Amino acid sequence: MSEKTISSRRVFEGHLLKLDVLEVELDNGRRTRREIVCHPGAVAIWARAPDGRFVFVRQLRKAIEQELLEVVAGTREAGETPEACARREIREETGYAVKALVPLGFIFTAPGFCTERIFLFYAELTGGGAVDPDPDEQLDVVLLDEAEWKAIMSRGAVQDAKTWAAWGMFQNIEGCRP
Amino acid sequence: MSEKTISSRRVFEGHLLKLDVLEVELDNGRRTRREIVCHPGAVAIWARAPDGRFVFVRQLRKAIEQELLEVVAGTREAGETPEACARREIREETGYAVKALVPLGFIFTAPGFCTERIFLFYAELTGGGAVDPDPDEQLDVVLLDEAEWKAIMSRGAVQDAKTWAAWGMFQNIEGCRP
Repeated sequence: MSEKTISSRRVFEGHLLKLDVLEVELDNGRRTRREIVCHPGAVAIWARAPDGRFVFVRQLRKAIEQELLEVVAGTREAGETPEACARREIREETGYAVKALVPLGFIFTAPGFCTERIFLFYAELTGGGAVDPDPDEQLDVVLLDEAEWKAIMSRGAVQDAKTWAAWGMFQNIEGCRP
Repeated sequence: MSEKTISSRRVFEGHLLKLDVLEVELDNGRRTRREIVCHPGAVAIWARAPDGRFVFVRQLRKAIEQELLEVVAGTREAGETPEACARREIREETGYAVKALVPLGFIFTAPGFCTERIFLFYAELTGGGAVDPDPDEQLDVVLLDEAEWKAIMSRGAVQDAKTWAAWGMFQNIEGCRP
């Protein structure tokens, strides 16, 4: 399968996002239009506090006008590796430091129309001190033990896609452990 | 937590997406900018073929310039319920019909900057005939038994966020079954 780009036009260039409108040609010769959001990419971390509990954030998300329970996550800055971004987000959003960081893989959040790729990690945390949040974000740290997390999951209260992916990938590595 | 909208400006209105730039005021009085992609919403279905295998599609995704293994999914049409959309997408993309449809919940794919909400379902399928794909999409149906699916998952080859969420939610209802 292929989709040849016939033309591409940038219709928006913002601080975070860019938006391109493409004309493409499919293998059957048909031409169609694609509206594509360009995003710099992000990381998300399935994290474990020193006491063994999982670390989440509850964050107000303006796009959906509600608070959401999510894994720790954030957008990559220019030139920043996924690993460095993960360590920075843990420090800023939770106040912990990363003791061990295990790459889990990556996901595309909305591949039908958006370039965003999120690198996922499992992290074991240490320390714990003052948080240093992005001044443009409002969030609270939430610590849950495995039973509490599973109860929230089973009552349908996990509504963030990357959090589901991080949990799935974490379970894969858990299964490999002695 | 709240974020009061101070101003909102529509900077793009496309066939699928709209893009708004907002100025918002946080609880601490600070003002900041939000770039928000408006999407009509979608459905995704964890589906089981008559022979018991799980049903996926392998689809070319222009935004990421690669093929992706995904659950059956699609964008909701104007006025279409999630249930009707799920039945239509199963028919169009796989050629099967829906025998039983169980709502699993919903997810937000990119709540930091996008309104998209995906309603997830579990479906048991029947029949099987000619597919009737959207002429603007290129995809192949992929049937996998549970062992094949788990092998793909454990080698990190599941890169689609909604597919992870559908699997997680399906496991929840599986655990409730006799």
